[in-house]
Amino acid sequence: MTQASTRQWVLSGAHIASMDQGKTPYGLIEQGAVAIDGAQIVWVGAATDLPPIYHNWAREDLPGGLLTPALVDCHTHIVYGGDRSKEWEMRLQGASYADIARAGGGILSTVTATRAASKDNLINSAQSRLNDFLAEGLGMIEIKSGYGLDTQNECKMLHAARALGQKNAIIVKTSFLGAHALPPEFAGRSDDYIALIIHEMLPEIARLGLADFCDGFCENIAFSAAQMRKVLETAKTLGLGLRLHAEQLSDQGGAQMAAELGALSCDHLEYVSEAGIKAMAEAGTRAVLLPGAYYFLGETHKPPMDMLRQHGVPLALASDCNPGSSPLTSLLLTMNMGCTLFGMTPEEALAGVTRVAAGALGMDETHGTLAAGQVADIAHWDVEHPSTLAYSMGSNPHVGQIRAGQWVI
Amino acid sequence: MTQASTRQWVLSGAHIASMDQGKTPYGLIEQGAVAIDGAQIVWVGAATDLPPIYHNWAREDLPGGLLTPALVDCHTHIVYGGDRSKEWEMRLQGASYADIARAGGGILSTVTATRAASKDNLINSAQSRLNDFLAEGLGMIEIKSGYGLDTQNECKMLHAARALGQKNAIIVKTSFLGAHALPPEFAGRSDDYIALIIHEMLPEIARLGLADFCDGFCENIAFSAAQMRKVLETAKTLGLGLRLHAEQLSDQGGAQMAAELGALSCDHLEYVSEAGIKAMAEAGTRAVLLPGAYYFLGETHKPPMDMLRQHGVPLALASDCNPGSSPLTSLLLTMNMGCTLFGMTPEEALAGVTRVAAGALGMDETHGTLAAGQVADIAHWDVEHPSTLAYSMGSNPHVGQIRAGQWVI
Repeated sequence: MTQASTRQWVLSGAHIASMDQGKTPYGLIEQGAVAIDGAQIVWVGAATDLPPIYHNWAREDLPGGLLTPALVDCHTHIVYGGDRSKEWEMRLQGASYADIARAGGGILSTVTATRAASKDNLINSAQSRLNDFLAEGLGMIEIKSGYGLDTQNECKMLHAARALGQKNAIIVKTSFLGAHALPPEFAGRSDDYIALIIHEMLPEIARLGLADFCDGFCENIAFSAAQMRKVLETAKTLGLGLRLHAEQLSDQGGAQMAAELGALSCDHLEYVSEAGIKAMAEAGTRAVLLPGAYYFLGETHKPPMDMLRQHGVPLALASDCNPGSSPLTSLLLTMNMGCTLFGMTPEEALAGVTRVAAGALGMDETHGTLAAGQVADIAHWDVEHPSTLAYSMGSNPHVGQIRAGQWVI
Repeated sequence: MTQASTRQWVLSGAHIASMDQGKTPYGLIEQGAVAIDGAQIVWVGAATDLPPIYHNWAREDLPGGLLTPALVDCHTHIVYGGDRSKEWEMRLQGASYADIARAGGGILSTVTATRAASKDNLINSAQSRLNDFLAEGLGMIEIKSGYGLDTQNECKMLHAARALGQKNAIIVKTSFLGAHALPPEFAGRSDDYIALIIHEMLPEIARLGLADFCDGFCENIAFSAAQMRKVLETAKTLGLGLRLHAEQLSDQGGAQMAAELGALSCDHLEYVSEAGIKAMAEAGTRAVLLPGAYYFLGETHKPPMDMLRQHGVPLALASDCNPGSSPLTSLLLTMNMGCTLFGMTPEEALAGVTRVAAGALGMDETHGTLAAGQVADIAHWDVEHPSTLAYSMGSNPHVGQIRAGQWVI
């Protein structure tokens, strides 16, 4: 961890996509300046408008480029054991799901490998994935459990996630995802597993302070909306924030249920109904779109983008990085997929990995835009205009990063 | 340019995906060794089988990982002027093609910007795109002209492409693509433009030795098969190799025509007919698949993969890097797209950017596999198994590169 900065300085010489709402597209300021006091932004505007009070602060003049808020990935599963690339290869060679299950593949292979891994193993393998995101200007990431599926191994995953935050001086938010899949020892007894989550896992994880949020996979191949309601209600009484994998493969009514409980986000949403969207809009629940999984699974049913927009549901965008359905470690590529596959505009895509993503993690009062009062988490890019960030595929124009007021690259 | 090496040495300590056909999948050798004499590979096999003759050669032991042939991108347009990201943004904001044309967008905007750019400008902007490919183990790239559309500017583009080969000590193969689009000064007179290509542009470019191949865009929005036949026949008499953008958006019979003329490759092929495929198989013409353009344009009609395989047409895979339909500078991501979007196996994908791509450029006698007699162009990856290269999205496990027998990274 770096020490808190007490420096007062002004950063200029670049354009700024502040992502502050209600002004220009992208909150764009040509030739902008940011005044930074310690860890905090105290002023943002055109360099020519810099108030006299900041004129004698140290000045750092960049040679051009663009400043944006540091990126936020609000839905990942980067902590896991094992490797699913060979299973993917089998699938492309024509193997059926039954063949793959017989060969030990599928999500339960990740559960087996994760249970077998030490906490340090999990930290090390996740670190290499996290490095890909950090190279693209990431400042905050959500990491889920969900491959332990028992109290001890879910705790181990969440400890590993917290350790990644400490090691990297970034903000890591954690979600307990015990209701991700049915563990093999509960085969045919899903209600018993839900009871274990409610009576043992959730209280223990809350007691240890390991999770900021509770999440679950509400789907015909996982848990019903009725089961997830019990889990989320318990989590709420324990003080955890709520989120839900909802309507990815079918409409289960999960989004409406979660929104009515005040969930911060519902994620995936390919099959969400208008009733679900209305409930989300009323509750202020964010939509977290995950085009990486849609792409990698070869899906063709897109989320109802126009309906989400019509009802004013804020659109976040995340990598869903995981070994089975989205081995994706690039938020820039995620932005491109959001535009190319779901028809988002480049501005919606950048908001989706900054301001709205921070909101989906309950952090938008301090993160996700460049504005007075926000923490100075800033990414510097070698591009002229923010649309380029989503347009290019395979290129990384990230050249510098400020976290809590200090350069780290 | 580096000086030719005279060193005799043995590289070991890693697995090898030799991509040599007819043996194991990927030509995989666990714990392999490569004996290198100057620029050339003289032996490849299991380290335990290394013949005594090489035992006293210098030995370099890697700490693990995988060796593959250096990657080959056999279809790119990386030399161009201008930037089309804002046009793309307009499209995502709902602008029509007419709106975009009125705002100066479309391929002719790239022509205008390319004509206005100096050769050095073109080299510099292409270099930044090339750097993305080099960071992923590229050793050979094809670069097309086609945004100059007059003799002087087509020559300028090809000079820039040749200069990139000199600057980077990689192999650059160039294709003259005068028949890419109709230049504005020939509006309504496409036969006159074809005559200019045949009587002025092609002879001049052949005289200057600027192009290895002649290419063209055979499509209802570009040039007919009859027009392209005239261009390719002329190119053939001038000693150029032939290739063709064929059947991307409709079946024009271009693949059959080009194959009958002995083309090295036909590229895109979403709408190719069985007659076209049969002609390609008979002539030994490679299919160059371009999933980046298919993805970026939101196409849904895939190339007839099974029919191509049934007839034994070799499948190459390329980025098609260009500003309008595939701003893609990653062959690893191209491999993932080949698998995810077109159902290629990871082994087909790796062959498509090594052995088959080298063949599509007429270079497979010396490049594209790790085998005795080949040039020692080798990429070193921090992965255990080659399937990982296509599986991951946004990660770059490339850790070292040998070109013509010498480490360059």
